[in-house]
Amino acid sequence: MNQSMVLTGDRPTGQLHLGHYVGSLTQRLTLQNQYPLFVLIADTQVLNNDVIKGSHVKENILSLMRSYLACGLDPQKVIFILQSRVPALFELTQYLSNLVSLSLVMRNPTIKTENKLYNDNEQLNMGFLNYPIAQTADVILFGANLVPVGEDQVPILQFANDVIDKFHYQFNTSMFKTIEPLLSHYPRLIGIDGVNKMAKSLNNAIFLFDDEKSLKEKINKMYTDPGHIRVSDPGQVQGNVVFSFLDVFMRDKQHLEALKEHYKKGGLGDVTLKKLLFEEINIILKPIKEKEFAYSDKELLDILQSGTSYANIIAQDNMEKIRDVIFR
Amino acid sequence: MNQSMVLTGDRPTGQLHLGHYVGSLTQRLTLQNQYPLFVLIADTQVLNNDVIKGSHVKENILSLMRSYLACGLDPQKVIFILQSRVPALFELTQYLSNLVSLSLVMRNPTIKTENKLYNDNEQLNMGFLNYPIAQTADVILFGANLVPVGEDQVPILQFANDVIDKFHYQFNTSMFKTIEPLLSHYPRLIGIDGVNKMAKSLNNAIFLFDDEKSLKEKINKMYTDPGHIRVSDPGQVQGNVVFSFLDVFMRDKQHLEALKEHYKKGGLGDVTLKKLLFEEINIILKPIKEKEFAYSDKELLDILQSGTSYANIIAQDNMEKIRDVIFR
Repeated sequence: MNQSMVLTGDRPTGQLHLGHYVGSLTQRLTLQNQYPLFVLIADTQVLNNDVIKGSHVKENILSLMRSYLACGLDPQKVIFILQSRVPALFELTQYLSNLVSLSLVMRNPTIKTENKLYNDNEQLNMGFLNYPIAQTADVILFGANLVPVGEDQVPILQFANDVIDKFHYQFNTSMFKTIEPLLSHYPRLIGIDGVNKMAKSLNNAIFLFDDEKSLKEKINKMYTDPGHIRVSDPGQVQGNVVFSFLDVFMRDKQHLEALKEHYKKGGLGDVTLKKLLFEEINIILKPIKEKEFAYSDKELLDILQSGTSYANIIAQDNMEKIRDVIFR
Repeated sequence: MNQSMVLTGDRPTGQLHLGHYVGSLTQRLTLQNQYPLFVLIADTQVLNNDVIKGSHVKENILSLMRSYLACGLDPQKVIFILQSRVPALFELTQYLSNLVSLSLVMRNPTIKTENKLYNDNEQLNMGFLNYPIAQTADVILFGANLVPVGEDQVPILQFANDVIDKFHYQFNTSMFKTIEPLLSHYPRLIGIDGVNKMAKSLNNAIFLFDDEKSLKEKINKMYTDPGHIRVSDPGQVQGNVVFSFLDVFMRDKQHLEALKEHYKKGGLGDVTLKKLLFEEINIILKPIKEKEFAYSDKELLDILQSGTSYANIIAQDNMEKIRDVIFR
């Protein structure tokens, strides 16, 4: 258990989009060559905010696996895990819940934030309150200690470390590694509306498997500077959605700076800029789309099942040790 | 799933006592001949109020099994289940928790009462809040619909039926049977202190395996009427601990009424009464103690394991159906 291991994952809520690519998938492509990498498809977590979301989980799991492999995650290196098929995760979550007070959960900033985003008009449900505990179990059951997160998600890991501390103290052990964040260098990608972060539910996403026609249409919808009417007019770069995207996707940063100066002075048209953005994004998406159907549904499920079986061996072994500590 | 089935059980917190015998064990001896009977040893529930209680669970499980069989529960008829070894229970609990609001849990009278009894000075913990949900899972996973309870525990079953209703409504199904109480006709047995209900933790219990010497000592400790100093003095029956016990254990109720009249008039000594009570209780405990070592530890664990294996077959089959409804 001394080697560093990475655990990360996604909820199977729909197709992956450019926000995922920038925020996590590129990082995973690097990580798979540096550490043992577990990628957990969090299908039971999907039910936390809305049980009815269970209705598309099967197709969303396939969609995730298809995206992962198309992006270049290597099934020889990455251990893909289907959360609902690791029984010890449920068991460990229940044991850990005995160590966690309601007030500790309520203080968790992620619970506060997500509650605001999704549940404002609903009553808090127990599944939602249990979810940071379940996330802690996700990490420690497999012996992982590194978790890729954005700055805003660091409190989740602090919560997990609090739970680990309580476990260690309560059972006089030091069996779990401290969890450390692998901070993502990218802020969350904005959506094509230029207002909210990119999210399927907000209808502002560019999906990894969008065809070129859709990609063009979406880029054409982006706001630039409403005052920039004729090509010759000076334009605003600040708050200009196309430039926000170019900031992320344009590889030649020097050229980008020159374009910004040109745009501010006037004489650079939105159509030219949008064409450029299309090309920069298409360079990323084209090879991904070419691999969209490299694996059949059955092959994708086989890879997921094989990873899950391997993960279950680790999980059962660790769960045995955890039970021995609890029921000593 | 149309046949009525009974689920009941105990937390492995220590030796069983006369309170258990009167309140549940005798009822089970009848039930085992009427219905399929699941007896669940709730070892994970033990951790809800105090994780540290995990430290004696192994020996307490053996003690429970030894008591069950010594009392006459028949391993050919009863399915004994070790809760922690049915992974689907943890899974179902987690799924159900998505249907239950924090406020529904907080309104549960049992949560209120037990919180007062055990946790007054502690913060509410999530395991404790999850426990009525876990109890619901205990019953419905195996397809049971009858649960022996005292009047005070009926709200637990109402809670379970609320959760079932929510599940049925949410997933447009009617897969679970409504849970019905099998009301126990006995009130909770009082302890030898005559003040509190009989409980190991209150140091006022007569254990099933107490030897005759201990039984005599415990009965001798019982308060009678402090005003009844000489045998010839008239005595009080009301509030007299020995009579409280005779009310429960004396088989010849007519004789008991005559004794009460005699005692009130004067001329009936406490020593005579206590000797009588000893005999009545000893008639129950003697055959139980004779069977205390009828099974070896290994045989007891084998019976428990075999019941748990059988229960897991039912559990996995039902869990498959439940998953199909959730992840449809």
